[in-house]
Amino acid sequence: MPIDLALVLDLLGCSFFAVSGSLLAVRKGFDLVGSVLLGSLVGLGGGVLRDLILNAGPPAAFSNPIYLAAPLLAAAVVYLLAGRVERVSRLVLPFDAGGLALFCITGTLKALDAGMNPAAAILLGVTTAVGGGILRDVTANRVPHVFDPKDLYAIPALLGAAMAAGLWYLGWLNLVTGSIAAAMVFSLRMLTLRFHWHAPLAARSWAIPRFRRG
Amino acid sequence: MPIDLALVLDLLGCSFFAVSGSLLAVRKGFDLVGSVLLGSLVGLGGGVLRDLILNAGPPAAFSNPIYLAAPLLAAAVVYLLAGRVERVSRLVLPFDAGGLALFCITGTLKALDAGMNPAAAILLGVTTAVGGGILRDVTANRVPHVFDPKDLYAIPALLGAAMAAGLWYLGWLNLVTGSIAAAMVFSLRMLTLRFHWHAPLAARSWAIPRFRRG
Amino acid sequence: MPIDLALVLDLLGCSFFAVSGSLLAVRKGFDLVGSVLLGSLVGLGGGVLRDLILNAGPPAAFSNPIYLAAPLLAAAVVYLLAGRVERVSRLVLPFDAGGLALFCITGTLKALDAGMNPAAAILLGVTTAVGGGILRDVTANRVPHVFDPKDLYAIPALLGAAMAAGLWYLGWLNLVTGSIAAAMVFSLRMLTLRFHWHAPLAARSWAIPRFRRG
Repeated sequence: MPIDLALVLDLLGCSFFAVSGSLLAVRKGFDLVGSVLLGSLVGLGGGVLRDLILNAGPPAAFSNPIYLAAPLLAAAVVYLLAGRVERVSRLVLPFDAGGLALFCITGTLKALDAGMNPAAAILLGVTTAVGGGILRDVTANRVPHVFDPKDLYAIPALLGAAMAAGLWYLGWLNLVTGSIAAAMVFSLRMLTLRFHWHAPLAARSWAIPRFRRG
Repeated sequence: MPIDLALVLDLLGCSFFAVSGSLLAVRKGFDLVGSVLLGSLVGLGGGVLRDLILNAGPPAAFSNPIYLAAPLLAAAVVYLLAGRVERVSRLVLPFDAGGLALFCITGTLKALDAGMNPAAAILLGVTTAVGGGILRDVTANRVPHVFDPKDLYAIPALLGAAMAAGLWYLGWLNLVTGSIAAAMVFSLRMLTLRFHWHAPLAARSWAIPRFRRG
Repeated sequence: MPIDLALVLDLLGCSFFAVSGSLLAVRKGFDLVGSVLLGSLVGLGGGVLRDLILNAGPPAAFSNPIYLAAPLLAAAVVYLLAGRVERVSRLVLPFDAGGLALFCITGTLKALDAGMNPAAAILLGVTTAVGGGILRDVTANRVPHVFDPKDLYAIPALLGAAMAAGLWYLGWLNLVTGSIAAAMVFSLRMLTLRFHWHAPLAARSWAIPRFRRG
């Protein structure tokens, strides 16, 4: 996969996540500056975490100023259009799903390109995909969505990361297959939301407390 | 700017932030150990984040033990004097402003010295200045102050980082100009608090929810 | 201390912390995926933070896939056994104490082996021991246990890190002395819980507010 393609997918993922952050900023009653900051945290946070762990020079978001365009544009678009949207809250998750689908692919590929073993690369792909959203929710002072037991969030990212690693090892990775993998993760995530698929609870006990976002 | 001067400004910024952390620990009912830890988190957290992103060896707070003096002294001073202060809560923000003013300058300079491009250096300066406070507020389980729509927090830091980068490029940076820039950021931050300057909300909608610190 | 021994103690610490994370996931009503994730965050988080700060290549949890076994096993064991346990909540702290006791030793040793000065090594040992638990509690949206004024949490870790540094400098460190130091930290931590030892509050004021986990 040429580096430019990885950059395009990564920037696209940043933009999706940044929009989800700016939409959450609207829902929480933040101002425009907070919208840019929350968009940056979720759009750039997962990638910065990934690059810190890869430990190969400063994170891409800092060495390449083009990354800053994503949260700035996202905050501007949300500012201009959010008033016309009936329920802003409903759009957070679809944009979040787009970011998740792209970041689990690009995170895994960047780790494989850096020479990590496949298990670590898949783990880093999931961390990249899930990390930004965890930072966003922790900062907005609520339990991260990834822990909601009425939803599957990390499983699509895990499947996407495994698919990306598989395509990479088979040498089949290119723009078409990479985009198909991302589209499959996105579709799976949206189906999960639509049909409320979920995993078993963390214990078989009959006395498990009810989950609250807090 | 000689390295010693940068160290002095950095230590001063750490001390201001550490005092703000220890004051918040008093307000939250933490003990002395929690006061040292919260002071360390906010006093050293922004700089550790900066040094992790610069990726040039272990963070200064770990390689240079003098940094540990700031949170220890801050917790001791707050322990001894807080009882005489009428309303401890009111002092958190002025000390926080002092840390903000110094860290946006030193963070930008350290990034420029490490060879980062100006956009990235300014971004890292803002991240350094804002990062410790976000860590402090997230740890104390409240929405970070930087997202309060009734206040401007990141804008003074952004202006300070841009001033520092400008002075650096013009070759005008020295003890006097650096201190003047920090004083301007501090003054702007205090005026913001005094006159309740704020940015527009994150959307133009009429139905934006009310902000709560949570 | 041979590297294999450090690895064994580190993995044991990861497992203890991972169990504490999975138990908390049960208490919070998370699902199995959330249990693995929270176990990973607390079991691997402190070590990843340590390795990021040491800045010597990718963190061990990513370069060595054996680390992933700890959170997976912990979630499975908790899933199978939690139903039979009367009060899961009571087990979080003992397992947390086991992780704390092992991580303050291994964190300090890894820092000393990397050439850090003793003050920094002890600080990094405490950071490693305390970091995972802070990440766990912040993610589960509550004030980290380390700040509870009715408890001592960081002090046993500090003593353990200082003991480890002392043994290392005297050349007395081996499997027996390392295990004894960890056992002492664990015992001190459990005694602290049993007898409610605590530190003085963060200020001498008579008007300190009551602490709430939030």
